Amino acid sequence: MKIIEGSITSPLGFSAAGVACGLKKNGQPDLALVVSDRPAAAAGVFTRNVVKGHSLQLSQKRIPKGLVRAVVVNSGNANACVGAAGMDDARAMAQAVADQIGCPAEQVLTGSTGVIGKRLDMDAVNRGIRQAAAILSPDVEAGHQAERAIMTTDLAPKECAVQFQLGGQTITVAGMAKGSGMIHPNMATMIGIITTDCTAGPEVLAASLTRAVNRTFNRVSVDGDTSVCDMVIVMANGAAGSQPVQAGSPEAALLAQAIEIVSTEIARMIARDGEGATKLIEVRANGAKTNDDAYKIVLAVAKSPLVKTAIFGEDANWGRILTAAGYSGADFDPARCDIYLGSLKVCEYGTALPFDEEQAKVILHQSDILIQIELGEGTASDRMWTCDFSYDYVRINGSYRT
Amino acid sequence: MKIIEGSITSPLGFSAAGVACGLKKNGQPDLALVVSDRPAAAAGVFTRNVVKGHSLQLSQKRIPKGLVRAVVVNSGNANACVGAAGMDDARAMAQAVADQIGCPAEQVLTGSTGVIGKRLDMDAVNRGIRQAAAILSPDVEAGHQAERAIMTTDLAPKECAVQFQLGGQTITVAGMAKGSGMIHPNMATMIGIITTDCTAGPEVLAASLTRAVNRTFNRVSVDGDTSVCDMVIVMANGAAGSQPVQAGSPEAALLAQAIEIVSTEIARMIARDGEGATKLIEVRANGAKTNDDAYKIVLAVAKSPLVKTAIFGEDANWGRILTAAGYSGADFDPARCDIYLGSLKVCEYGTALPFDEEQAKVILHQSDILIQIELGEGTASDRMWTCDFSYDYVRINGSYRT
Repeated sequence: MKIIEGSITSPLGFSAAGVACGLKKNGQPDLALVVSDRPAAAAGVFTRNVVKGHSLQLSQKRIPKGLVRAVVVNSGNANACVGAAGMDDARAMAQAVADQIGCPAEQVLTGSTGVIGKRLDMDAVNRGIRQAAAILSPDVEAGHQAERAIMTTDLAPKECAVQFQLGGQTITVAGMAKGSGMIHPNMATMIGIITTDCTAGPEVLAASLTRAVNRTFNRVSVDGDTSVCDMVIVMANGAAGSQPVQAGSPEAALLAQAIEIVSTEIARMIARDGEGATKLIEVRANGAKTNDDAYKIVLAVAKSPLVKTAIFGEDANWGRILTAAGYSGADFDPARCDIYLGSLKVCEYGTALPFDEEQAKVILHQSDILIQIELGEGTASDRMWTCDFSYDYVRINGSYRT
Repeated sequence: MKIIEGSITSPLGFSAAGVACGLKKNGQPDLALVVSDRPAAAAGVFTRNVVKGHSLQLSQKRIPKGLVRAVVVNSGNANACVGAAGMDDARAMAQAVADQIGCPAEQVLTGSTGVIGKRLDMDAVNRGIRQAAAILSPDVEAGHQAERAIMTTDLAPKECAVQFQLGGQTITVAGMAKGSGMIHPNMATMIGIITTDCTAGPEVLAASLTRAVNRTFNRVSVDGDTSVCDMVIVMANGAAGSQPVQAGSPEAALLAQAIEIVSTEIARMIARDGEGATKLIEVRANGAKTNDDAYKIVLAVAKSPLVKTAIFGEDANWGRILTAAGYSGADFDPARCDIYLGSLKVCEYGTALPFDEEQAKVILHQSDILIQIELGEGTASDRMWTCDFSYDYVRINGSYRT
């Protein structure tokens, strides 16, 4: 299982394109197309928000029905909360792709991300789809272009590819995602697409994806908000020619592992690129009584604006970490609780420990910060990624729509 | 029931003082003493955080046991997470007050707010208590001084007094509080003290206070964090000479109403003075199926950093309001949901409504912003206060400890 330089087009049989069709200002790329040269099995995880974008709703409706040839995603407009016209627009978007690549419209999935409550400019979308279809390519660079076209406030692309051997064949799994603000558990990342040339049915894919999402994208918190357009899609087109992966087999475990590695790398990239972020923070809770207690603690600490601003200020304010754990709803005795910043123990048995402020400064000055909470109650653990909370978060989000 | 100019000393028989004893830098006031000239009945609401400050723990232990003569509160140090010495320090603080005013130490309550994990400087505290006892005064201004001494990152004092008639006697209820960041439901405000010259037993006081806290301080969210030192204390000393208020009587209802008015005014002051706040936001959910659904929605919207930064940027980004309602866990159909910013309807039946951007700008430029979500599902409603999220929140909290 090794990570390779690659993109969404690294698995065999996939091509992609990213273009600027005018949904975003200043000619920025805003429409991505990912196409499999043959029908692919697919699975998806979708937002649990009761408000759902129209493009997402169409994908959610189509994905259980069968095979998929393409996913089209636009940025700059969420195609959400615009009434019945939103579903019409999503269907038209899928139809335009189907017309270009020659497949039934039902085999095209749609995604949209951006501002809520504005009709999609369908002239721009149709123009973009024609442009993208014309330059579809299996080159790695085409995958990078597709990634750039789904980014909104993202500063860095989020892509990862891994390869492993399966019955003598080399299998590639690759993923790309956009997501910066509005990333939070109970959602996947904003929009993610995973491709593989493995042969696997929708049940195997769904099981692998659900497990991976729960352990990775659902362990990222940027601002505690969750979006109406979040989805992760996985497509397996079998182009590598391997035997079909059977549920519960060692091969299925390998595939699940590959999907989880790709998802983990991308999840960390999302946290690191949180809106305004200057640091990646990993919060670990160890020795909890139950998994639920461990989860509640990492969730509360990772969401706390006071913890996140303290890390931004490189301030070893561990009291805020213990405080967040304390209100998390987890069952634990603070008098057994130790807290570490990196390798530096700052709190022992719930009590302040004299520590070297200079050493704390060095640790907090790094770009990757590890917060560990040792509970001494049991053996359950969990971890979550987040980022610090900076002036730029406020700047970016104070004027997004206008 | 009328609001008067006043302070914590407005009810008969109460005196107060606020002094600077050196716990805070630059000679800022940091120790407050509130004393009743006779033993008062008392009740309290305390943080539900499993981590609790030592001074708070002492008050929580003493308050059910009987009468109270004084409350001493220091700022600049939370007296939390310092081990067994923290309780010793809280007891010594109470004893020092008891020695000065001549009462059993058990009749003195203690509160501390500030940095977690540092021992209290007891020389400073003892000096402060002597200073405060020497200048105790029933003047309104002495109450204002006490309020100033409990403030931490607060920019404005938070005080309110009301008067009403009870059986021919004028009864006064007054309150003061500190609280700016770390204010959130399941907590009272950081520290609040309510005094009254009414005659009422601890059960009547506890019932009134619990109801008021649930409807006011537990409906304020500044940053979603909750502190280990939060408490609200009410003392009734009977100095107005009225008949004892019986539980369930019309007099008890009047007293409860007075306590709620004082708490409401102070709760709004806390939201308005949230760290870095430029605007007071009131979030209302109407027409919900159940009280719990209404509560979940106002809570999610009031906590959302994306909503709060949009209001800071005066951006009519109602999609974020609907999104937050959508992930709140409340049961509702977005297709029935209307959203108003002030009097301006921006979303109807879950769908974007064309609205006058200029009018939206005028509304969002005001200092008080009302967000209303009409659910069309039932008759339950709730409301919560919060503030916008600005650059200054990050500045204040990035370097609090150092």
